[in-house]
Amino acid sequence: MPNKNKNISLPSEFELIQKIEDLLSDSDPDVILGVGDDAAVVKPRLGLQTVLTTDTFVEGVDFNVNFSSWWQIGWKCMAANFSDIAAMGGSPRHTLVTLCLPVQRIYKEIEDLYQGFHDLANRLGLSLSLVGGDLSSIDGPSVISIALIGEIDGENIIKRSGAKIGDVLCVTGHVGGSQAGLHLIKKAQDQPSLERILDKFEETLTRHRTPLPRIREGLLMSRTGWVHAMIDVSDGISSDALHICRNSKVGLHLDVTALPIADETKLALEQLRLDPIETALESGEEFELLCTVDPENLASLVDLVGTETGTLLTPIGEITPQDQGYKITDQTGTYSLLPKGYEHFRS
Amino acid sequence: MPNKNKNISLPSEFELIQKIEDLLSDSDPDVILGVGDDAAVVKPRLGLQTVLTTDTFVEGVDFNVNFSSWWQIGWKCMAANFSDIAAMGGSPRHTLVTLCLPVQRIYKEIEDLYQGFHDLANRLGLSLSLVGGDLSSIDGPSVISIALIGEIDGENIIKRSGAKIGDVLCVTGHVGGSQAGLHLIKKAQDQPSLERILDKFEETLTRHRTPLPRIREGLLMSRTGWVHAMIDVSDGISSDALHICRNSKVGLHLDVTALPIADETKLALEQLRLDPIETALESGEEFELLCTVDPENLASLVDLVGTETGTLLTPIGEITPQDQGYKITDQTGTYSLLPKGYEHFRS
Repeated sequence: MPNKNKNISLPSEFELIQKIEDLLSDSDPDVILGVGDDAAVVKPRLGLQTVLTTDTFVEGVDFNVNFSSWWQIGWKCMAANFSDIAAMGGSPRHTLVTLCLPVQRIYKEIEDLYQGFHDLANRLGLSLSLVGGDLSSIDGPSVISIALIGEIDGENIIKRSGAKIGDVLCVTGHVGGSQAGLHLIKKAQDQPSLERILDKFEETLTRHRTPLPRIREGLLMSRTGWVHAMIDVSDGISSDALHICRNSKVGLHLDVTALPIADETKLALEQLRLDPIETALESGEEFELLCTVDPENLASLVDLVGTETGTLLTPIGEITPQDQGYKITDQTGTYSLLPKGYEHFRS
Repeated sequence: MPNKNKNISLPSEFELIQKIEDLLSDSDPDVILGVGDDAAVVKPRLGLQTVLTTDTFVEGVDFNVNFSSWWQIGWKCMAANFSDIAAMGGSPRHTLVTLCLPVQRIYKEIEDLYQGFHDLANRLGLSLSLVGGDLSSIDGPSVISIALIGEIDGENIIKRSGAKIGDVLCVTGHVGGSQAGLHLIKKAQDQPSLERILDKFEETLTRHRTPLPRIREGLLMSRTGWVHAMIDVSDGISSDALHICRNSKVGLHLDVTALPIADETKLALEQLRLDPIETALESGEEFELLCTVDPENLASLVDLVGTETGTLLTPIGEITPQDQGYKITDQTGTYSLLPKGYEHFRS
């Protein structure tokens, strides 16, 4: 971890690491050696396997400092990684974070970013330790790159490829809120007189800025053995459902009338004059879990997830043979499902 | 791993991942689930601990496409991460790579980058599997961020903090070549008429462009129990020796007349009119190992490392009590050691 603060008015990497260590290095007994040496050493727990994911976020492409605070950006970037591990049925443990920052970025912003990582983990009741990182200056947009290391019971891994014909496609929580929130923020920025309308849509804005990945739900569902395939909604339900279908070599019949859209989101979309169904199908970064469930155990699973986590699990479609393709039904008929929405709205 | 190729003329992430998978996903039986799902799953080997490191590289700050090919850049970025794991006494196994690329980058460059990762691992006889990644467009310099996951025997971890008074400070291989190589390349770029002199310094250029991290040597030394502290030379011998001293709360007496500088590097530095000792002390990204050794076992260790790996291990100083500070001796006397070089050259 060389110090690369060349020509940068940031605090020394050492000073920053000290501060961050206090935030994100709790007394996890499995961290044998944390930040401060050439590499970290962690002890895998007996019988568990290691689950690994990474995501990179570029200012102006993946986040916008005019739409979110650095604390919110930190929360959401880490949430994207958490969500990937949730979708396998795993649990996050350790993280490595690299930052590329232009000279005008100040100490407080970096601290807020790490506070966002910490507060997300805390909110989910997880102990997350930062075990390494790197800091470089950049003559360009800020870049945040996160690698997340977690643990998973080898028996309970849920792949995208396990969907079976006859399975019911379900989604946790609500969808559409992330894109609705983004549209609200953009609209209020374009027309500052509208800014006060944002107060009415706090839940929807939260869905965009600080979504909650479904770690507990993923763990719980993976243990039942009733869930055959799972993915997190990061690209949008239509795209992500198709990822499951292609990996599992099956078809899909999606019932869009069943899509769980929160009342506040519906109201926001009405004001924005956006179609709720198309928005819900396209809205990415929802970090809900999309899964296919043995129909025999559907009722028990919905009940279990509701009782244990308070989270809604809604059936929204059925897995069909591959040669039946990807279909979608709304009040007017049955159409072809596309990665972004469906044909009905294209014609 | 969402597809973020927004407005970028790159191949689809899918296409790229397919190509790269062929390069970097061998049939490692410990990779339970590789690239292509929400996260990867790997199986820790019984009794071993997990070693983790990360480094980020920004075009124009950490690498220069006018000085090195993309294949060389790939090799060197991965070498920096390998070297961090070597310095603990560990062995690399799996990697996660995120790339941020401006639109003008072409497919071939990315392929070359990954070929560099692969060829480094291959050269070292290691099986390295790419288990995840992310690709984003950037309106700015390219950014390569690597997280490396390896394994280590918990009994053999060598920290920076273990140096004992009386230990001998040793370094593997040769030093100074990395900075000499960079100066040669810069000089030839400034004065194209000098470009043919580069042919005489192939070894030195290789030291800058495609250095070989000391994985085998690190593993071998960690198993002996004779090495008390270790770090890789990434910032320069003087800085890195001081990292060991500060972490171990000891002093140091460095004998610069003993620094192992290759004949070709000496010749290059002569032509460049640069002081070989100051260059050797300051030269970073050497990826040699700097370690402190029990004096009783010094001869045996030098012999063992030489016999098993063919690599030179040279004693260059002695660990002293902390209150004796950091000293350095050359032909003219004894001076204070500074993070970059020593006082003699400052006056």
